[in-house]
Amino acid sequence: MTFQNEADLPPGLECLKNVDNLLRCPICFDHLDISMMTKCSHNFCSLCIRKFLSYKLLCPVCNSELTEQDLRNNRVLDELVANFQAARLRLSKVHFDSPPISPKT
Amino acid sequence: MTFQNEADLPPGLECLKNVDNLLRCPICFDHLDISMMTKCSHNFCSLCIRKFLSYKLLCPVCNSELTEQDLRNNRVLDELVANFQAARLRLSKVHFDSPPISPKT
Ligand SMILES: [Zn+2]
Ligand SMILES: [Zn+2]
Ligand SMILES: [Zn+2]
Ligand SMILES: [Zn+2]
Repeated sequence: MTFQNEADLPPGLECLKNVDNLLRCPICFDHLDISMMTKCSHNFCSLCIRKFLSYKLLCPVCNSELTEQDLRNNRVLDELVANFQAARLRLSKVHFDSPPISPKT
Repeated sequence: MTFQNEADLPPGLECLKNVDNLLRCPICFDHLDISMMTKCSHNFCSLCIRKFLSYKLLCPVCNSELTEQDLRNNRVLDELVANFQAARLRLSKVHFDSPPISPKT
């Protein structure tokens, strides 16, 4: 997965960009939604890959042969997406809430 | 996966704790090393689950029937572990390098 998305991480958190990218679907580029894993170890949203397989019985990433029966839920990715989004929100608030230079009191 | 580990995240990054826990193996509690996924969608280090299966043909998390042939590489987790560790290191340096109160110059 080497696709690029526009930077949507707040300043100081650019180092989480790779983690963010790994949690995205190579078909819709959004965060994975009901992640399904192929035998070739590639992950897609459930709806995205099922739509794709209705046209071609191949993995969209590596072209391995693939059928719906080969798909397996990858539930830890769904949990990672939810927790990563929550953490990103909290970290960005920390950054925005604290002024860059503390006033003398 | 509801196990708890001692807090090893630097101050301000506690919100990444859930992400950290999801990337750990339920057998050795370390970050996943060559992650293998079961049909029941549970993940373990390759060595940890193979050792376990030499004693019992069950998933250690949910007790579903399981054989070595049912295991599937979950490579995105290996990439997530590597990138999460790198990001955590960079974020902790940012926190430690910047003084809590900026001196007036
Ligand atoms: Zn998708
Ligand atoms: Zn593939
Ligand atoms: Zn392990
Ligand atoms: Zn299981």
